[in-house]
Amino acid sequence: MRATMIYGPGDIRVEDREYPTVRLPGDAVVKVTATCVCGSDLWPYRGVKAVSGPSAIGHEFVGIVESIGADVTELAAGDFVIAPFVDSCGKCPQCLNGVTVACEHIAGWGDTDEHGLFVDGGQGQAVRVPQAEATLVKVPGITEPGDALTASLLTLSDVMATGHHAAVSANVGPGRSVVVVGDGAVGLCGVLAARRLGATRIIAMSRHADRAALAVTFGATDIVAERGDRGVAKVRELLGGVLADSVLECVGTRESMEQALHSTRPGGSLGFVGVPTGGAEIPLRHLFDSNIHVAGGMASARTYIPELLRDVLDGTINPGLVFDSVMPLEDAAEAYRAMDQRRAIKVMLRP
Amino acid sequence: MRATMIYGPGDIRVEDREYPTVRLPGDAVVKVTATCVCGSDLWPYRGVKAVSGPSAIGHEFVGIVESIGADVTELAAGDFVIAPFVDSCGKCPQCLNGVTVACEHIAGWGDTDEHGLFVDGGQGQAVRVPQAEATLVKVPGITEPGDALTASLLTLSDVMATGHHAAVSANVGPGRSVVVVGDGAVGLCGVLAARRLGATRIIAMSRHADRAALAVTFGATDIVAERGDRGVAKVRELLGGVLADSVLECVGTRESMEQALHSTRPGGSLGFVGVPTGGAEIPLRHLFDSNIHVAGGMASARTYIPELLRDVLDGTINPGLVFDSVMPLEDAAEAYRAMDQRRAIKVMLRP
Repeated sequence: MRATMIYGPGDIRVEDREYPTVRLPGDAVVKVTATCVCGSDLWPYRGVKAVSGPSAIGHEFVGIVESIGADVTELAAGDFVIAPFVDSCGKCPQCLNGVTVACEHIAGWGDTDEHGLFVDGGQGQAVRVPQAEATLVKVPGITEPGDALTASLLTLSDVMATGHHAAVSANVGPGRSVVVVGDGAVGLCGVLAARRLGATRIIAMSRHADRAALAVTFGATDIVAERGDRGVAKVRELLGGVLADSVLECVGTRESMEQALHSTRPGGSLGFVGVPTGGAEIPLRHLFDSNIHVAGGMASARTYIPELLRDVLDGTINPGLVFDSVMPLEDAAEAYRAMDQRRAIKVMLRP
Repeated sequence: MRATMIYGPGDIRVEDREYPTVRLPGDAVVKVTATCVCGSDLWPYRGVKAVSGPSAIGHEFVGIVESIGADVTELAAGDFVIAPFVDSCGKCPQCLNGVTVACEHIAGWGDTDEHGLFVDGGQGQAVRVPQAEATLVKVPGITEPGDALTASLLTLSDVMATGHHAAVSANVGPGRSVVVVGDGAVGLCGVLAARRLGATRIIAMSRHADRAALAVTFGATDIVAERGDRGVAKVRELLGGVLADSVLECVGTRESMEQALHSTRPGGSLGFVGVPTGGAEIPLRHLFDSNIHVAGGMASARTYIPELLRDVLDGTINPGLVFDSVMPLEDAAEAYRAMDQRRAIKVMLRP
């Protein structure tokens, strides 16, 4: 099969790889029908995160079950499935608490499982999925979704689940005022998640016309282009002299975290899903003095997918609009370039 | 009148001071019937916090309204009232959000109000209370509570409200497992608050037999004396191999914060009310990786008092048991010594 490999910074290649097979009784092999490039895939691409030799890459995909192991009873060949961005067991205390990203038997795509067996990356034609029944979410009644539905289902792998996690972590609910810091695919999904959860006032901080327009489509009531103290002043002005009840931090830099922190009202909530980089910290004394709630981290997509899936299937939300570009899998290198250069918000790859 | 002053580290004096009078239309003058020494009063006493000349001290008191200003209509002379540990307006956006400790017109006891007028400390015979209607909570139908009820009402000024804030911040609820770090009056009230909110398993970390016994009275199901990694291992063992859903940090040191952080399960919640000292911090990357929720700070006692008061009045909770010593106001210096030397959990002073 053809699959995407990263050899080092800036070096993405689509190569011939061995077609995966069922190796454990809990496995399924999924034929990938759509995958995509994540903002976090750009860290090794940009050399921010080290690459140790050629590695399979990609952690977001949807597709069709081709074969299953002997222990798999709730999935069958032909099922259309969504893969969350990590593989989890569904049975350990962390999974039972809904925190599948802390699964005691976790496996990552493009890495090895707990038995030391290779797990394919998501940016390829097929993937061996360990712990398949617990990991994959079947889309009921659908075998060949059209392009628009495929796009929305694919976002549940990661970006829509992550935007939702930011909103949940920031205690978004009916009537709450919300600021979203970051206008990438996750930030835009955060806007959509905030609207879905009942926020009435949603301020998206964006300086890109196309992203701001999509933020408005997703439910943003206001766009703020200013940053730093001027950004905070603008938020305060828009909200009638107070800061926001809930702030979603969807970038992870020191600047974005400070922007988020200083946009949150006393006693408000900050949900952060941008991986902290560049010295991003929150002084504990500041939290104490401001009574601000902080929560976030990696989204347990597997836990969130069922409720989000319902809303995708009935048309309540259409997060697939974050894909502004679709390319064949063979053009993966160009897909990375387009995202790296911010020519695209998010690129879908079709094997 | 007689009132307690702090002159410097270790130097507490009870002196003659001018009896307070109504100076603003929103004022009330309260005759103090019971007050007490707070753990945070020990910071200036120990020289951890600077003292700039002789200052009135004390921020927890209950008593009887003696006189009111022209604008006060919902309080009358003779009312028995509880004073939260800060004075707040009840009308600004922060107060309307329930975060009275961030009130835009906040005043502290023993300090000055926003008009520059002196506000008496709580450890004296009487106090001028600005913004009295918004600040004070009337205890309905009671004018002369007995000793036990007085003690419980007095805890609502601060320690019980603060223990409750720790529990609320740690998302304590029915069925949750809870660890409480700190066995001072606040930690003990945290145990009581956790039980009141429905926690089924409550582990109190205590190495003092008398405090551990009171923790059990308040609802602790287990006592852990170990600290550090051994304390974490003990928590994990008691909870069947997992860490706690909710952890209450009621000390504020680097060690106690680390103990709390490492006792919280992935996706769990840490509520902290100990003022961060000694380099206590929470690395943002740790929060990201563990998906732990963090919230806390000063309790908005004014917001919490009404619901806690109901439970005190109907006997559901008896937080007044944290007072293991009662002294006349004249013995304030001895009260500070007893608390400083940990001979007492909490000392009530009777003017």
